[in-house]
Amino acid sequence: MLSVPSPSVAVLGASGFAGALAAQLVWRHPTFELAAVTSRSDAGRRLDDLYPRHRVPLTLEELDLDRHAEVDAAVVAYPHGASAQVVSELVAREVRVVDLSADFRLRDPDVYEHWYGDHPVPDLIDRAVYGLTELYRDELAGADLVANPGCFPTAAVLSLAPLARAGLIGDVVIDAKTGVSGAGRAATEKTHFVAVDENVVPYGVAGHRHTPEIDQELAALGAAVTTTFVPHLVPLDQGELVSCYVTPARETDEPELRALYDDAYAGEPFVELADRPPGVRDVRDTNLCRISVHHDTRAGKILVFGATDNLWKGTSSQAVQNLNLMFGRPEGEGIS
Amino acid sequence: MLSVPSPSVAVLGASGFAGALAAQLVWRHPTFELAAVTSRSDAGRRLDDLYPRHRVPLTLEELDLDRHAEVDAAVVAYPHGASAQVVSELVAREVRVVDLSADFRLRDPDVYEHWYGDHPVPDLIDRAVYGLTELYRDELAGADLVANPGCFPTAAVLSLAPLARAGLIGDVVIDAKTGVSGAGRAATEKTHFVAVDENVVPYGVAGHRHTPEIDQELAALGAAVTTTFVPHLVPLDQGELVSCYVTPARETDEPELRALYDDAYAGEPFVELADRPPGVRDVRDTNLCRISVHHDTRAGKILVFGATDNLWKGTSSQAVQNLNLMFGRPEGEGIS
Amino acid sequence: MLSVPSPSVAVLGASGFAGALAAQLVWRHPTFELAAVTSRSDAGRRLDDLYPRHRVPLTLEELDLDRHAEVDAAVVAYPHGASAQVVSELVAREVRVVDLSADFRLRDPDVYEHWYGDHPVPDLIDRAVYGLTELYRDELAGADLVANPGCFPTAAVLSLAPLARAGLIGDVVIDAKTGVSGAGRAATEKTHFVAVDENVVPYGVAGHRHTPEIDQELAALGAAVTTTFVPHLVPLDQGELVSCYVTPARETDEPELRALYDDAYAGEPFVELADRPPGVRDVRDTNLCRISVHHDTRAGKILVFGATDNLWKGTSSQAVQNLNLMFGRPEGEGIS
Amino acid sequence: MLSVPSPSVAVLGASGFAGALAAQLVWRHPTFELAAVTSRSDAGRRLDDLYPRHRVPLTLEELDLDRHAEVDAAVVAYPHGASAQVVSELVAREVRVVDLSADFRLRDPDVYEHWYGDHPVPDLIDRAVYGLTELYRDELAGADLVANPGCFPTAAVLSLAPLARAGLIGDVVIDAKTGVSGAGRAATEKTHFVAVDENVVPYGVAGHRHTPEIDQELAALGAAVTTTFVPHLVPLDQGELVSCYVTPARETDEPELRALYDDAYAGEPFVELADRPPGVRDVRDTNLCRISVHHDTRAGKILVFGATDNLWKGTSSQAVQNLNLMFGRPEGEGIS
Repeated sequence: MLSVPSPSVAVLGASGFAGALAAQLVWRHPTFELAAVTSRSDAGRRLDDLYPRHRVPLTLEELDLDRHAEVDAAVVAYPHGASAQVVSELVAREVRVVDLSADFRLRDPDVYEHWYGDHPVPDLIDRAVYGLTELYRDELAGADLVANPGCFPTAAVLSLAPLARAGLIGDVVIDAKTGVSGAGRAATEKTHFVAVDENVVPYGVAGHRHTPEIDQELAALGAAVTTTFVPHLVPLDQGELVSCYVTPARETDEPELRALYDDAYAGEPFVELADRPPGVRDVRDTNLCRISVHHDTRAGKILVFGATDNLWKGTSSQAVQNLNLMFGRPEGEGIS
Repeated sequence: MLSVPSPSVAVLGASGFAGALAAQLVWRHPTFELAAVTSRSDAGRRLDDLYPRHRVPLTLEELDLDRHAEVDAAVVAYPHGASAQVVSELVAREVRVVDLSADFRLRDPDVYEHWYGDHPVPDLIDRAVYGLTELYRDELAGADLVANPGCFPTAAVLSLAPLARAGLIGDVVIDAKTGVSGAGRAATEKTHFVAVDENVVPYGVAGHRHTPEIDQELAALGAAVTTTFVPHLVPLDQGELVSCYVTPARETDEPELRALYDDAYAGEPFVELADRPPGVRDVRDTNLCRISVHHDTRAGKILVFGATDNLWKGTSSQAVQNLNLMFGRPEGEGIS
Repeated sequence: MLSVPSPSVAVLGASGFAGALAAQLVWRHPTFELAAVTSRSDAGRRLDDLYPRHRVPLTLEELDLDRHAEVDAAVVAYPHGASAQVVSELVAREVRVVDLSADFRLRDPDVYEHWYGDHPVPDLIDRAVYGLTELYRDELAGADLVANPGCFPTAAVLSLAPLARAGLIGDVVIDAKTGVSGAGRAATEKTHFVAVDENVVPYGVAGHRHTPEIDQELAALGAAVTTTFVPHLVPLDQGELVSCYVTPARETDEPELRALYDDAYAGEPFVELADRPPGVRDVRDTNLCRISVHHDTRAGKILVFGATDNLWKGTSSQAVQNLNLMFGRPEGEGIS
Repeated sequence: MLSVPSPSVAVLGASGFAGALAAQLVWRHPTFELAAVTSRSDAGRRLDDLYPRHRVPLTLEELDLDRHAEVDAAVVAYPHGASAQVVSELVAREVRVVDLSADFRLRDPDVYEHWYGDHPVPDLIDRAVYGLTELYRDELAGADLVANPGCFPTAAVLSLAPLARAGLIGDVVIDAKTGVSGAGRAATEKTHFVAVDENVVPYGVAGHRHTPEIDQELAALGAAVTTTFVPHLVPLDQGELVSCYVTPARETDEPELRALYDDAYAGEPFVELADRPPGVRDVRDTNLCRISVHHDTRAGKILVFGATDNLWKGTSSQAVQNLNLMFGRPEGEGIS
């Protein structure tokens, strides 16, 4: 853990949805100082012109590492594959990094290669701490490179962790629903309003890249399963719901399930347990993951529903949650 | 099958979403004649005042069986429980009935009682034909009482029938997403725009009443399974997607799966097979069920996605499809 | 008027929203035969792959005038400026044309030039009939080139025509609200779901190209006014509402206003008068324009609200309405 | 102005949208203490059960003035007519009040009576300060009863004030678009999701109760006009746009208009001037009013567009802005 009075933070790739929100959260943060925001495509534009409601009055700049690495920390909001190289250079210059891409999430380079192609800087993988705050709090405190989790793995792993630890996951299907901001700011046939409005569509069927990340983290918790994971695009902006259908590995009942989740999350400031299934509106613009667990005695399944805001706890506010730990700040500072 | 030159049809309960659409489809039908529309709550109002775009210029009347049973057929769009009694009286007066409620869908009175309470006219249950047209076409031709399926069972059973027949369903999870029209016209805390907008919420968790109906029909096709079924409310008007996750009872592969679906649905005018997962927008305002099947070799699951319009194929256009069969009309007349 | 037993129709530019709907309406039309659909960007794709719910099983082709001009009529759904040249070639080959672009709407070439730039074939302008069916019915019957109106002028001119004829328009402000399909199928920063969702934005302020078209038609009806016109993008797919605020040129009252509208539209099959202000949902997927007129005695204004579906009466179903007239078919055939 | 170290605030009627947001803003406020939340209909429920994302862990109570008047201030979120009586009792007990209803907004009792009926406590009207912060800042600092403005008047008067002061408003039409939260939490035919979705509807035509409030405030600024005001319901949750069409009383030009707005709002923390027309998304969840002004030289009109969040600056965050002034706190505390 590092003690710096007012750590300066640059956000690289700040013109996308995730980067822009990270910039806003740092801008409003009582301790951090937003030193710079960069963007290749929108350099020269003001961030509050692109995102008026964020009210960040800085101008987006082209990345110039000689200047932009003069900071205490950087949040890197680059696409997968494009991120690793710049992260590597930042780390070499002793900048602490939270990387929002997938480049350092998968600990096994072979798995990375299978899903994403060659890794640009495989040697750096071991140095990264996986940034699911609730599970890696201690390691994050001393980290200089954090691989911020994918939005789906954040919700899915938090939803399933108590079952994984208790050896209860025999088999699991995760059906996810996500708002369109998760698809990024690029204007495509798929993000056109008319394509999304009054529609629900599955995508990435049997091949979404968040799947190995979920498997990795469930395995780390003791559940060696091959997850079935299918996300669906729904007509809303921010929000993500994972509906988890678990075939239990052994007998259980509602009281045991409740106890497992209470024990796991009683002290967690950003995990809420609910009696009724959560909706994504319940957590909009918050760093919360709201979870309910149910025992379907008829079909013999455990059902878990987890709701997050894909841009907040699913990405950018969790990045700040991690920055707080990395710099010894109260974990919820600036995001509560 | 009955031959009547221009069968007259009354729609009872025509002020709700399903009844109003049934009335419109009958009104526009080239052969049927819309004889009357009834409503308890909105008697005296014109249907084209309530639903301008349907353009049905009839006035809603209080039900008066002496007058309203003077028709060849009736579509009954009453709530569950309230329907059975009036259906019984109509059948007694030799009116052919398509009942949109659940009252005659479950063949086992004990199952009905478990999910809905006492059945008002249990003796009539055996007389009803289950109106999933593609599966009961022959029986429907001679039927005088048709239990129109629930919207979820329509999509789910069509999506799973080829697997059920082939003995492939070891276990199945059905995660459904539905538009708000499925919740009916009643203004409640749950149907308020602000509750639905920018939200996705599971409901009826481990206890939705369409579950036994799905189980019944899968069993009739040879698959004795206990389905896990959870619907989710999504912010759109009409449309329903079922995402089915099947653990196969035996080995299979993509070619076998494709062949099973091609065989089952090659000649079906209202079932479409798609290579990519369907979206609900693909079938909006149509009598179609659009289905894709996928083999997830990694997790060893069969994935089936089925999209329908909950008010059309899920309810009212399927009712007309059945009426067509009952009166010897071309199956797609008035709904293509 | 021409009598052809089963006129063949090509739709050029059928991959956009308006062209695709025109193709579907022709495909389902009981008399017309859809001979071909063309598209530059999507040639080779099936139309029912792009628009599954339209169910038009034709393949989009590159335009080849030698083949595609072998039809009785063509609907041209090209962008402004790009349309005039191909229209000219079709007319030269004696193909009857309904042009959905603005290229032949403005009768004064100088006005065209001011708003759109040089006109490619100015000599053809005089030959075109303005396709606002309710106002130009007689001329349309004999037309071989129809300039289909813009969506906003359709709603605005129908809403204001009775006042214009009666000399009542002293000054008029038109505030329009439109769904996103009006912006076309191109994926841009403005049509991205996240830009539109939970938003309302004015655009084309004090300079939208439909303004001179509205002025031209109001002048033709006797009202020489300079309209103030501002459209707003609202988060929906299809639909358009014009809210017209008229400062009367002379005294009037509610009974006179009602009488003017009743007289103008009593016999019109596709104009509906309503007591309450119409919503765009009232006319979705119809060829209707639904209008209400009100006298605001407090502020001394006449208020007129007109709702249409921008893709239907605002564009493609009106094109078919015009085709019907051009070929001596019942005006509402295939679009009622 | 009163100096109290940590003023305690009760929110009466906290189960509605406006009251709940006011409660959240007070709860999170660094200086104020949320002492109690009351509700008739939902007494006994937790506020974070009704509005999970607000995270206010208090239980709603039945109003008991003996207990609930033991506070320094109250925000009263009661319906019009129902508010005046309780406000009167609070003021009598020396509780400072911000009233969100219309009961004390209209300074002329006859005008109130015309639009709302008899006033329950007419003697108190003179004591109220109109809470449009930017216009009444000085009076608000010493106020003990604040009539918080309506959401439409807030946006409309801020948008038009510079023109009113400059004697530029000859005539004005205000076309407003609002999200559904403005209609309140009551579940009605009009707030049902299916009624709003894919719809735009005018309402309160030539008779909305915010009209006299706009007229009153424009008159106070020197513009004695009779406003034409029509709001429209659009399918979104929070947000409000006023499009103002001004016929100038004298000649003007773009530079004069820009200067007027710059002069009026240069130092205002919560009024933003924009070159392009604002969208409501630009100000979502903020206390901002974002305004653009344009000179339509063609039609000779001045166009002004003003966007606010109807629940924030339009209601509850403006209430807190006023509370801040009343208690000598920095104006933006807790709402920036």
